[in-house]
Amino acid sequence: MRALVFDGQEPSLDSNRKDPTLVPSEALIRPLRMGVCATDLEICRGYMGFTGVLGHEFVGVVEQVGKKADKDWIDKRVVGSINCVCGKCDMCRGGLPEHCRDRTVLGIAGRDGCFADAFTLPIRNLIEVPPGIDDDHAVFTEPLAAAYQIIRQLTIEGRPFITVLGDGRLGLLCAQVMSQLNATVRCVGKHPDKLALCEKWGVKHRLLDDVGRRADQDIVVDCTGSATGFDTAVRMVRPRGKIVLKTTVSPDSQNQPIDLSPLVVNEIQVIGSRCGPFSEALATLSEQKVDVLSLISRRVKLTDAVDALRTAAQPDVIKVLLEP
Amino acid sequence: MRALVFDGQEPSLDSNRKDPTLVPSEALIRPLRMGVCATDLEICRGYMGFTGVLGHEFVGVVEQVGKKADKDWIDKRVVGSINCVCGKCDMCRGGLPEHCRDRTVLGIAGRDGCFADAFTLPIRNLIEVPPGIDDDHAVFTEPLAAAYQIIRQLTIEGRPFITVLGDGRLGLLCAQVMSQLNATVRCVGKHPDKLALCEKWGVKHRLLDDVGRRADQDIVVDCTGSATGFDTAVRMVRPRGKIVLKTTVSPDSQNQPIDLSPLVVNEIQVIGSRCGPFSEALATLSEQKVDVLSLISRRVKLTDAVDALRTAAQPDVIKVLLEP
Repeated sequence: MRALVFDGQEPSLDSNRKDPTLVPSEALIRPLRMGVCATDLEICRGYMGFTGVLGHEFVGVVEQVGKKADKDWIDKRVVGSINCVCGKCDMCRGGLPEHCRDRTVLGIAGRDGCFADAFTLPIRNLIEVPPGIDDDHAVFTEPLAAAYQIIRQLTIEGRPFITVLGDGRLGLLCAQVMSQLNATVRCVGKHPDKLALCEKWGVKHRLLDDVGRRADQDIVVDCTGSATGFDTAVRMVRPRGKIVLKTTVSPDSQNQPIDLSPLVVNEIQVIGSRCGPFSEALATLSEQKVDVLSLISRRVKLTDAVDALRTAAQPDVIKVLLEP
Repeated sequence: MRALVFDGQEPSLDSNRKDPTLVPSEALIRPLRMGVCATDLEICRGYMGFTGVLGHEFVGVVEQVGKKADKDWIDKRVVGSINCVCGKCDMCRGGLPEHCRDRTVLGIAGRDGCFADAFTLPIRNLIEVPPGIDDDHAVFTEPLAAAYQIIRQLTIEGRPFITVLGDGRLGLLCAQVMSQLNATVRCVGKHPDKLALCEKWGVKHRLLDDVGRRADQDIVVDCTGSATGFDTAVRMVRPRGKIVLKTTVSPDSQNQPIDLSPLVVNEIQVIGSRCGPFSEALATLSEQKVDVLSLISRRVKLTDAVDALRTAAQPDVIKVLLEP
């Protein structure tokens, strides 16, 4: 089969990749759409030390299952949680399976990803996609869930001022999700073309250069994907305010040291935030409360997946979808 | 008068420092005891860009007041909040005066400190010290309040595992304060002599080299005062756990870049924590629930204050007190 493989040096298309091995508890999935995420790009810069097939955003069809009891899943259109967990460690038993000590993560840690003709996931990770949600919408389930995770981690009281920092893939999803809250939300970014989408959605937006660093925001959500994003967030948030950190950057990307002392002086809280609830994301997609189609900048065939990564790294591009 | 002055290069004793000017809302205070804090040492490395008289931990006697209405304060023995606030900005009006936008801070920002024969503070910052608390205890009010601030910022449920990281001045206070909670508390440090105090107090303690980085602590309080403390805290705290950050170090002290990505991956919360409630600290000192006398390593005369700073920087020293 074909697969986009990162070997630790460069991503490349392997046209003769061995088919994945199906174990009893898992399903073999044929992806219909795949999404390129900033994490894929960071991995190609060495983040997580991952090698193997890239990719973790998908909607696909179950082709085979590992055991007969799961045969009803065959031909079902699915999305799926990317964390594959042991069910036995202290985190799993403590109700935090997404933090399983022995987990593998699709295309991120210890498990081949979905940028391929086929891949595997545990049956228990799968969620059937309702017929009302087409493939172009369903492929946004994973990043949209990550946006909803922020809401799970925050208490919103008294109409706070929230800045979503970053107008990229994740920032524009977060801006839409946060604007459903009882809050004054603005998206701050560097790209007028991308911020124009906020205009369309009725979400406040400002160019970073036009915004003061006034330390007056109650909450700043860092979706910049950049090493300088944290510093900007620290300057924007008010004393005793909160920074939600969605950005993962390798420390090697830092061009200046991170200064933590303002966190102490201004008693700022930083809340790390990763994967989120698929059910809420699917419900939102079903109700069309979030516009994801406008985020699709390019569609690229799997055969040209290396190009897709290159395209996704360009500043004027939002979401790149891969198709079989 | 005499004063320990930092000129941006070196601390030195100025024996002919001009007496402070007393304004109507303030009091002139003669210190009886002064405490040397890690922040004083960091300031001498350039932290906060402060120049002027150093020092912010004290117990003293009110010598003069700026207006007649305050004359009852004269001869009172006092401690005092180090944040001098405007009362008008959004932070002051919003109930967070310690985060006043226009504040000066005793010996730290825009206001001469207490390592002198006399200094000034606003009357409204002062708290009278009850007669049951002697000078050697009272001088610990400010750092002890900073330890109590942690408890104000945390919710303690279900007997969490807490590591206080650092066996220095602040760490040993925090370890004592935290051990009053319904929690399993241990102090982790590098100095057997200092950790021996925990033994005396019945507080669990371990040498850093003997402790695994198992990511199993619910809460880690970073009192290391070192640039590597944060990294150690990140490795010790469990996924979805909390790091309370008390340490302020200048980014110039970092010998390796800080990696924030584990905060995202493990969804860790970081809570910056600074000054705390003097009332709770005084109550604790009054009830002798915390042993501060064992922390006093040296007593140095103000005339030898430069030596006092040097002594306080030595690894085997805990608290250095200055006396007039």
